[in-house]
Amino acid sequence: MSESLMTASEAQLAAARVMARCDALAEISETDDGLMRVYLSPEQMRANQRVGEWMQAAGMTVWQDAVGNICGRYESATPGAPALLLGSHLDTVRNAGRYDGMLGVLTAIETVQWLHDHQQRLPLAVEIVGFGDEEGTRFGITLLGSRGITGSWPESWITHPDGNGITVAQAMQDVGLDAAKILDAARDVNDIAAYLELHIEQGPCLEQDDLALGVVTAINGARRLNCRFTGEAGHAGTVPMTHRKDALAAAAEWMVFIEQTTRELDPQLVATVGTLHCAPGAVNVIPGEVQLSLDVRGPQDEPLERLLSMLLTQAEAIALRRGLTFDADEFYRINATACDARLQQALSHAVETVQGRSLSLPSGAGHDAIAIAERWPVGMLFVRNHRGISHHPAESVQAADVAFGVQAYVQAVCDLARG
Amino acid sequence: MSESLMTASEAQLAAARVMARCDALAEISETDDGLMRVYLSPEQMRANQRVGEWMQAAGMTVWQDAVGNICGRYESATPGAPALLLGSHLDTVRNAGRYDGMLGVLTAIETVQWLHDHQQRLPLAVEIVGFGDEEGTRFGITLLGSRGITGSWPESWITHPDGNGITVAQAMQDVGLDAAKILDAARDVNDIAAYLELHIEQGPCLEQDDLALGVVTAINGARRLNCRFTGEAGHAGTVPMTHRKDALAAAAEWMVFIEQTTRELDPQLVATVGTLHCAPGAVNVIPGEVQLSLDVRGPQDEPLERLLSMLLTQAEAIALRRGLTFDADEFYRINATACDARLQQALSHAVETVQGRSLSLPSGAGHDAIAIAERWPVGMLFVRNHRGISHHPAESVQAADVAFGVQAYVQAVCDLARG
Repeated sequence: MSESLMTASEAQLAAARVMARCDALAEISETDDGLMRVYLSPEQMRANQRVGEWMQAAGMTVWQDAVGNICGRYESATPGAPALLLGSHLDTVRNAGRYDGMLGVLTAIETVQWLHDHQQRLPLAVEIVGFGDEEGTRFGITLLGSRGITGSWPESWITHPDGNGITVAQAMQDVGLDAAKILDAARDVNDIAAYLELHIEQGPCLEQDDLALGVVTAINGARRLNCRFTGEAGHAGTVPMTHRKDALAAAAEWMVFIEQTTRELDPQLVATVGTLHCAPGAVNVIPGEVQLSLDVRGPQDEPLERLLSMLLTQAEAIALRRGLTFDADEFYRINATACDARLQQALSHAVETVQGRSLSLPSGAGHDAIAIAERWPVGMLFVRNHRGISHHPAESVQAADVAFGVQAYVQAVCDLARG
Repeated sequence: MSESLMTASEAQLAAARVMARCDALAEISETDDGLMRVYLSPEQMRANQRVGEWMQAAGMTVWQDAVGNICGRYESATPGAPALLLGSHLDTVRNAGRYDGMLGVLTAIETVQWLHDHQQRLPLAVEIVGFGDEEGTRFGITLLGSRGITGSWPESWITHPDGNGITVAQAMQDVGLDAAKILDAARDVNDIAAYLELHIEQGPCLEQDDLALGVVTAINGARRLNCRFTGEAGHAGTVPMTHRKDALAAAAEWMVFIEQTTRELDPQLVATVGTLHCAPGAVNVIPGEVQLSLDVRGPQDEPLERLLSMLLTQAEAIALRRGLTFDADEFYRINATACDARLQQALSHAVETVQGRSLSLPSGAGHDAIAIAERWPVGMLFVRNHRGISHHPAESVQAADVAFGVQAYVQAVCDLARG
């Protein structure tokens, strides 16, 4: 283990500040009975204000960009040099935890704070962004903050309404932004050298491996489908087993296949049936129709496609053999996002330095890095999260793990900036 | 094939009358958009009135008994002799078909009509009963009519409320009956020699075998349970397949076992999962809990118990292996009702006479005969029913099959009464 730049006691102090600031941001909520802070709300503006103050205290120049992201720049030894961009999001789901998103922004600030405290200027500038929307809670469209930075907002977004019929454009105006100026948020490709994001894991792998930190290999691609088996309803007492066209029995056979095949094919693939509705749905009636969802994910698109194709082929075969019909409608698809090899290497080295060994793992959840990867290399660091619970008030991280996180972040940023 | 007593043209005329009377009774409905006629309604009283008139025209003495069954007696050659009791029910489910129940009463009337037309008196009297409640649509308790005849109403029934809070006792009073006199409906065990019931099949077996009529061996026993697998909800993208406690995957494995085991154990057993609810029920969340119903039925209790025990043992084993819990709560149980051997034989002989061969089959659905069998031997004749659909306006029988039914009924009644 080589020596880290940030001492353990410095890291503990920084982590304590991160934890306190996560608590402080959790107070800025639209709802009293659980944290919720959505895009273009007064609460987002207040959170931006607080985060901007903390950035400023860390020696950064601060601005809010044209889509409502809060941004800061810690100048390079060479003024105007490209920046390492560190970031995550400040918006939340309904009844959220306090770390998903915020932890990445606040650890980034501590990273810069350490440089500032030690009067270090790097060959690259360090910028931080707190994205205004990642979750899509308000408008049902996601990654609005990061797609502002990449300049890839579709034109249709500004007329998209929230649940109260308020469009994005109107909501921007309500907080003093101008939908006509969205492209001002886009960054020149040469302004940014790479993007790093620290995030809670949202899964159980680090906890299972008894590790504080891990390095992300890829953000999983995903496909979501609404599927349906159509058979024939019938009397549960009078139709012999051999005469049935039981849609639920067909679905059960398929679900067993889904689980077995996904397990056997590749340990990095996951497949989930999360919803199932059974009609007519009476204790004494054979189900005539079952609607169920399928969610498959994996860190590479090719094996994911292969899995999906095997599952759908088998569903058809089951339906055919049983005299039912099967149909499936894909309603969501996102390709896998690979993390940059050099960034992974630098993060792994930093993680090994602070905790002895590193673990590489895919991200099952989506992140701002998906959008950023359209233009710039991305790297991600995961922090252990108790029982993998996220999007819930029970979301929980340990200060000791956050200390490791800040230490590794400082190390990786210095290594990368110094090339 | 021996010769039947009733000629084919007599049977066709009788069947035509039965079909017309089924249509006439279907007009006596509480709801305009579908047939519904429940116990102790003004519509039941009107139906009793009509059926009583038809009984009278067939030479019967008619009365309404103390629980609201419409009854008729066609006297024996020896006045006061015990009776063969023929019957079925005149109440319906909501949005019902027009044959379930009514067909058995109206074919019985044609049987007596034929005796009357031919001035035949038998060594036994022939009685007919149109039961006021079999389905339990109004009060949620079933077989109130037949349990009136057997004298086995529990005391608690008269205070049982309908959906509007009206008790059975109050409802009786509203149609001129007296709850204090319920026991007057009970028949002396020596008054009745045997009970026969003709009913639509409510299943597909006769249609599959291309037969109009079949003879019931037993009315299936049934067990119904609410079951639950409890696992752990989790993020569909971040929890590896091997770390999951997916309640739906466990339920799927069990449902496959249920279907396979039931098929392999005995072709007369059936098992159905008719309802399944999956929580939390989101496309991107691993199901943490699944509640599902299990309905198992069979013509004999011992194999049925054995099946149920195998299924529950396997559910426990699946749960244990996967780190989940399983629990099951039996909320309904009815033992199997065997049909009397001598009555089966007489019915089979009659069926062979009219259609060339007979088919013996269990009844998957419940019938008035279940209650009657507590006191008297019972036998049942099934009539083919298109696609096995019942409890639905699409319920459908053919006049030609009904003609066979009446012919067989006359034959069996004469054979049995003459010993």
